[in-house]
Amino acid sequence: MRNEESIIEGRNEVIEAFRAGKSVDRLFLLSGSSDGPLMTVKREAKKAGVRIDYVDRQRLDQISVTGKHQGVIAYIAAYKYAELEDVLKSAEEKKEDPFLILLDNITDPHNLGAIIRTANMAGAHGVIIPKDRSSGLTAVVAKASAGAINYTPVVKVTNLRNTMEELKKKGLWFACADMDGKNMYEQDLKGPIGLVIGSEGSGVGRLVKESCDFTVSIPTSGDIDSLNASVAAGVISFEILRQRKGY
Amino acid sequence: MRNEESIIEGRNEVIEAFRAGKSVDRLFLLSGSSDGPLMTVKREAKKAGVRIDYVDRQRLDQISVTGKHQGVIAYIAAYKYAELEDVLKSAEEKKEDPFLILLDNITDPHNLGAIIRTANMAGAHGVIIPKDRSSGLTAVVAKASAGAINYTPVVKVTNLRNTMEELKKKGLWFACADMDGKNMYEQDLKGPIGLVIGSEGSGVGRLVKESCDFTVSIPTSGDIDSLNASVAAGVISFEILRQRKGY
Repeated sequence: MRNEESIIEGRNEVIEAFRAGKSVDRLFLLSGSSDGPLMTVKREAKKAGVRIDYVDRQRLDQISVTGKHQGVIAYIAAYKYAELEDVLKSAEEKKEDPFLILLDNITDPHNLGAIIRTANMAGAHGVIIPKDRSSGLTAVVAKASAGAINYTPVVKVTNLRNTMEELKKKGLWFACADMDGKNMYEQDLKGPIGLVIGSEGSGVGRLVKESCDFTVSIPTSGDIDSLNASVAAGVISFEILRQRKGY
Repeated sequence: MRNEESIIEGRNEVIEAFRAGKSVDRLFLLSGSSDGPLMTVKREAKKAGVRIDYVDRQRLDQISVTGKHQGVIAYIAAYKYAELEDVLKSAEEKKEDPFLILLDNITDPHNLGAIIRTANMAGAHGVIIPKDRSSGLTAVVAKASAGAINYTPVVKVTNLRNTMEELKKKGLWFACADMDGKNMYEQDLKGPIGLVIGSEGSGVGRLVKESCDFTVSIPTSGDIDSLNASVAAGVISFEILRQRKGY
């Protein structure tokens, strides 16, 4: 599902991408290889804080679009990531309490795109995704966001928990979406808030959940277990907007 | 994206499917053809109220999985449709006012599946789709519904407006989801209700919209035009549940 434009293959091409400051979402390297150019790729990856996936030749051949990967393939973000500071500044400029949406384990690009779209419409100032357990900003995500990716900043962080601790110092409270959480209508969701949404399969990771100040749930009346992650994000986000605006 | 199991090809196979009472979602027939078995297919389609799409041989070859279509290909619903009566009876048995979700122009199977899932969790008694302008109940829909398709009945009707008129006589009110509609928080959504959701591109069709008693919108605070159809359906459905339960 990845757009071909966002795949870069070959030693010089990937080294150039790093040096041009492009945001590499994933990096696949031939395992057991240690020649000069590949060592340069490793150094650049380390500098940029990009994790390397070591794979065999067969896997590289499968991923390759051009057939000329020379042992290295990089996935580049189709859109630029923002800085956390920019998001907070945007809330400040609008004279609003910050409202951020943090995603844990949302690897489906359609879900990520739909949540960016919802974030925009619900008045959230930005979306935060972890470096490792998330889809990157691919062309599929951009399309699913219906243009919202051009307005709503997305920040990629190394460690969600560290970012949460940093934001707590700036006054944010963190609400973890959880089917067993407290009825969201009985919870005060006004004020500076970070809403943490997990994947449909595994929810929010245990450590991230423990870093949250409280849990919130959508009261439901059904036979199955859970809502689609982007629908759940939508329902809770609009409850936050409702409380903020006093509807 | 259609599951192979739900495609039936060949003259006798399709005639048999009709005679076995299977629900045919779409029927493709070679245009300009008028031999005996194809005439039988046409008669069966007419009896079952199934529209025929006349296409050329090249198109049939493209659609064909087996390569042996003999001029006719039918898409069969992977899941059974319910009757309107069953849905109303289910509400009655639960001693609840009926809450139905009607879909107009939702052709994306992922959206249809997500909405069936939401309908289940928000306590809706059924989903109503029109024969022509909707995705059928394919395997993709079933998967996206996360099992909800086994609990929440889906009714396929010939004409949404006629069905709405019939339901109005039974006391239902119809709310049309519309970006320019009335703030949903200021609208009484309790009592017997049908929520009408349209496609993201074209919304609810003009005539269907005119049959609604009122319009409702989600108050938003963003830069883009609209929410994803399944997210919008979720946000309004849970507002209906909130009002019903008095949260």
